[in-house]
Amino acid sequence: MDKKIMIFDSTLRDGAQAEGISFSVKDKIKIVKALDHLGVDYIEAGNPSSNPKDLEFFEKIKELPLQHSKLTAFGSTRRRDIAVETDKNIQSLLESETDVVAIFGKSWDFHVTDIIHTTLQENLNMIQETISFLKGKGKEIIFDAEHFFDGYKANPQYALSTLQAAVDGGADGIVLCETNGGAFPNEVYEITKKVVDNFSVPVGIHAHNDGGMAVANSIMAIEAGAVHIQGTYVGFGERCGNANLSTIIPNLQLKKGFLCIPEVNMKQLTSTARYIAEVANIKLSDKEPYVGHSAFTHKAGMHIDGVNKAAHSFEHIPPSLVGNERRFLMSEVAGRSTILSKIQKIIPSITKEDPVVQTIMDRVKELEHQGYQFEGAESTFELIVRKALGKYKPFFEIDYFKTIGEHPAQNSEFGSSAMIKISVDGKEEITAAEGDGPVHALDKALRRALEVFYPELKEIYLTDYKVRVLDTKTATAAKVRVLIESSDGHDFWTTVGVSTDIIEASLIALVDSIEYKLLKNIEKKIKVYL
Amino acid sequence: MDKKIMIFDSTLRDGAQAEGISFSVKDKIKIVKALDHLGVDYIEAGNPSSNPKDLEFFEKIKELPLQHSKLTAFGSTRRRDIAVETDKNIQSLLESETDVVAIFGKSWDFHVTDIIHTTLQENLNMIQETISFLKGKGKEIIFDAEHFFDGYKANPQYALSTLQAAVDGGADGIVLCETNGGAFPNEVYEITKKVVDNFSVPVGIHAHNDGGMAVANSIMAIEAGAVHIQGTYVGFGERCGNANLSTIIPNLQLKKGFLCIPEVNMKQLTSTARYIAEVANIKLSDKEPYVGHSAFTHKAGMHIDGVNKAAHSFEHIPPSLVGNERRFLMSEVAGRSTILSKIQKIIPSITKEDPVVQTIMDRVKELEHQGYQFEGAESTFELIVRKALGKYKPFFEIDYFKTIGEHPAQNSEFGSSAMIKISVDGKEEITAAEGDGPVHALDKALRRALEVFYPELKEIYLTDYKVRVLDTKTATAAKVRVLIESSDGHDFWTTVGVSTDIIEASLIALVDSIEYKLLKNIEKKIKVYL
Repeated sequence: MDKKIMIFDSTLRDGAQAEGISFSVKDKIKIVKALDHLGVDYIEAGNPSSNPKDLEFFEKIKELPLQHSKLTAFGSTRRRDIAVETDKNIQSLLESETDVVAIFGKSWDFHVTDIIHTTLQENLNMIQETISFLKGKGKEIIFDAEHFFDGYKANPQYALSTLQAAVDGGADGIVLCETNGGAFPNEVYEITKKVVDNFSVPVGIHAHNDGGMAVANSIMAIEAGAVHIQGTYVGFGERCGNANLSTIIPNLQLKKGFLCIPEVNMKQLTSTARYIAEVANIKLSDKEPYVGHSAFTHKAGMHIDGVNKAAHSFEHIPPSLVGNERRFLMSEVAGRSTILSKIQKIIPSITKEDPVVQTIMDRVKELEHQGYQFEGAESTFELIVRKALGKYKPFFEIDYFKTIGEHPAQNSEFGSSAMIKISVDGKEEITAAEGDGPVHALDKALRRALEVFYPELKEIYLTDYKVRVLDTKTATAAKVRVLIESSDGHDFWTTVGVSTDIIEASLIALVDSIEYKLLKNIEKKIKVYL
Repeated sequence: MDKKIMIFDSTLRDGAQAEGISFSVKDKIKIVKALDHLGVDYIEAGNPSSNPKDLEFFEKIKELPLQHSKLTAFGSTRRRDIAVETDKNIQSLLESETDVVAIFGKSWDFHVTDIIHTTLQENLNMIQETISFLKGKGKEIIFDAEHFFDGYKANPQYALSTLQAAVDGGADGIVLCETNGGAFPNEVYEITKKVVDNFSVPVGIHAHNDGGMAVANSIMAIEAGAVHIQGTYVGFGERCGNANLSTIIPNLQLKKGFLCIPEVNMKQLTSTARYIAEVANIKLSDKEPYVGHSAFTHKAGMHIDGVNKAAHSFEHIPPSLVGNERRFLMSEVAGRSTILSKIQKIIPSITKEDPVVQTIMDRVKELEHQGYQFEGAESTFELIVRKALGKYKPFFEIDYFKTIGEHPAQNSEFGSSAMIKISVDGKEEITAAEGDGPVHALDKALRRALEVFYPELKEIYLTDYKVRVLDTKTATAAKVRVLIESSDGHDFWTTVGVSTDIIEASLIALVDSIEYKLLKNIEKKIKVYL
């Protein structure tokens, strides 16, 4: 049987210390559900003494039964020179009523004397008494030895004695924290090995990414005998972030034969990452290992050719194992076979001899020459294919529009407005809207007009808007490429427009985005009714 | 003396294989200059046989003398079953006239037989003959052993024989490529050590990040005796990216005593990363180690308290060593010394006690909060300083403007026009212009009006125009940052504007650009006549 590694997720505690992240109580509950569903062992959900939001969360979460994960509250050892029973922070840990409590204490002598200003002995007492007290209340206790590696390098004897204090207090596990994130894989291996050889309780690792090596450091600790990994699911965390569990889990489970989460859930790794990023309102990096949008995306012609012959020629694992997918990019370096395989995704029956393939290729080349780029704009590509097949009839016509930008404006320094006239099957509709800039005004006016005919468009909204200036030599007269990502709450799709006029480029992408949605709706209806 | 590690940057070659990256020839020249200025040893600038843009680049770059870096062209070994002299790709490598050529060849037997469909012996011939031929033309040759680690694991004998073929051909260095990016630190260490022990030429490492361990794997190779690292400066690259040199360089130079780039340039690590990301129009991750905006940002109260008592309590290095800065999210104490040093660049005599320093800092903070960024927009920053010093009187006022975008337009599908009224010392001027898009029309109208008063503006023109959407969540209503680069034929200067309205953002940057030029002209006149 595979050796079990305990996965301890701190997205809601250490992850919440990242710049730009602020979870509401509702967000936290959503993330707890997602992590439980994925099957991590521990969910460290907050520090009830540090802020009132966490306190409210722990009240609410009591009603939610978890299937797999143990909810964990996080807090410090008792403060110096007071009795543990009277420490309010310890009291609030008890009130959160979790089965597991993670207690952090100082392992670096310098921090004891110069930061919390107490004696080395009192720090040991703080650790042991706090853990012993909470054990007496029936808790499972994980001891986080803060700054353990820096502490060990400065004073190994003392660092080890803080672990011993935790064990003497009854800790169920001791976790070595690489708090400042600057350690190297070799030293993490060696120091962890020393600890594993000297203690019989389970040993864990908690790494930060300040040297860009949090994943490797976590894995080196496992190689040295650690059996518990703390991290955050997509690497959120203070400064450069925590060890990224969405990378560590597949590294260990797919390649090293460890069991981290139930095997059947491995395919959820990608969707869980995207969901958590969405809830946190953070854009998941496209190049995130395993779960990123580009993680199995090939652009160079030779790579595409290789993957077509044998996937493992340029892929370290099959993307489906983690619920991700392979993509071939359209680009100046991609060849005929890429475009064909893209067309076949839309119409599986087509062969490369079909004359429409050449028509589509010519059109794609012509658009690329104009500055279009279909990598990441698959929906525009799909519309091109459908148009070439003659299977396509426009849903509306834009008869006329006008945008106005002015300064000073009626109620502000700058103002933008747009009017637009459209027609659908001979019926006309004219509307106007104000907006932040001419593109926004035009977007609003267009939707308002179309919703008269297609009420289902109310559910779509734009999730991303990107502008790239293509030929900077001509400066403000340069061509721009606009990428628009839209969503209806379930699916996401991206469309592209190119023009020297940013309004025109945006409108092309907007129109494609709306037509794509309408097309999808019709296909769904056909599926349902026929 | 510190041991030298050769730094080989492939941002312009492997980095260009990343999704979403498409460098113009001008972008490539800018990045070459930045990397040369930083002091990397090799700049791999493209594959002249793979696309016409790279060919044009190699023509243009011949006129640019580099101070530090060696420009490198990249290409494959000769194709199978033809003479090296007749291979067009090899010919185009010669035509690019670089002193250094990187040649990649297959080291994994499976790739030889199943992907490029030749015999194991012919592959060895391809490697040796290609290198020997190019050595005969006086080139320095670096051999990239593609898939070396996977190859070694499958057939160590054969993988090593491909290196031997390169050495027999006269290669100046052999680089072990972890092409699929899925290897672990320990195996990279062990396999690299075997190679270092068996070959006397310098050994290099080229790692990809599919397992999230490219930085650690590169460092493990150095620990095993490698002396050359290939990567991309901010980690751009196929799939999950290449080894990130902006992390590796400080890891090795600040903590391991190696010399990667000239010591005096270490402070440029952060600005170089931001500049390259800006040129590529890619958002640099805030949590990027060392160079990210959040890399030394503290949010938790206990961390802020600790850093205030002793910086190394929660920082692995002092941020100034890499030109980055510490920020506290809760309190407004960030960056004072950084901003002071920037002000002193403009007015050397100013001290930090001068009350104007606080005024400028407040203004900069307020603008940064709005989304301004002064990296690469020093001219806007200079105007802020001058305005705060009261040494500044506006050259003109914009009384009114209106832009119109319309479809259909008089003579084309889309049309844009602008009218503007300005005044200079009480004298008014109203003009109008048509343009490609509203920004271009407004730019033309503004210049036309101003040239009545300031004929010297005729000599200035825009050389670059970049748009970055700051907050993509609000889509077309998002804030945009516009960067404008201008030139008068001698100097170049960059200004920045931020707004939710792209026209307003562009106008702010345009106005700054013009004012900066007028200010410079006055100073020149003062210098000449007084």
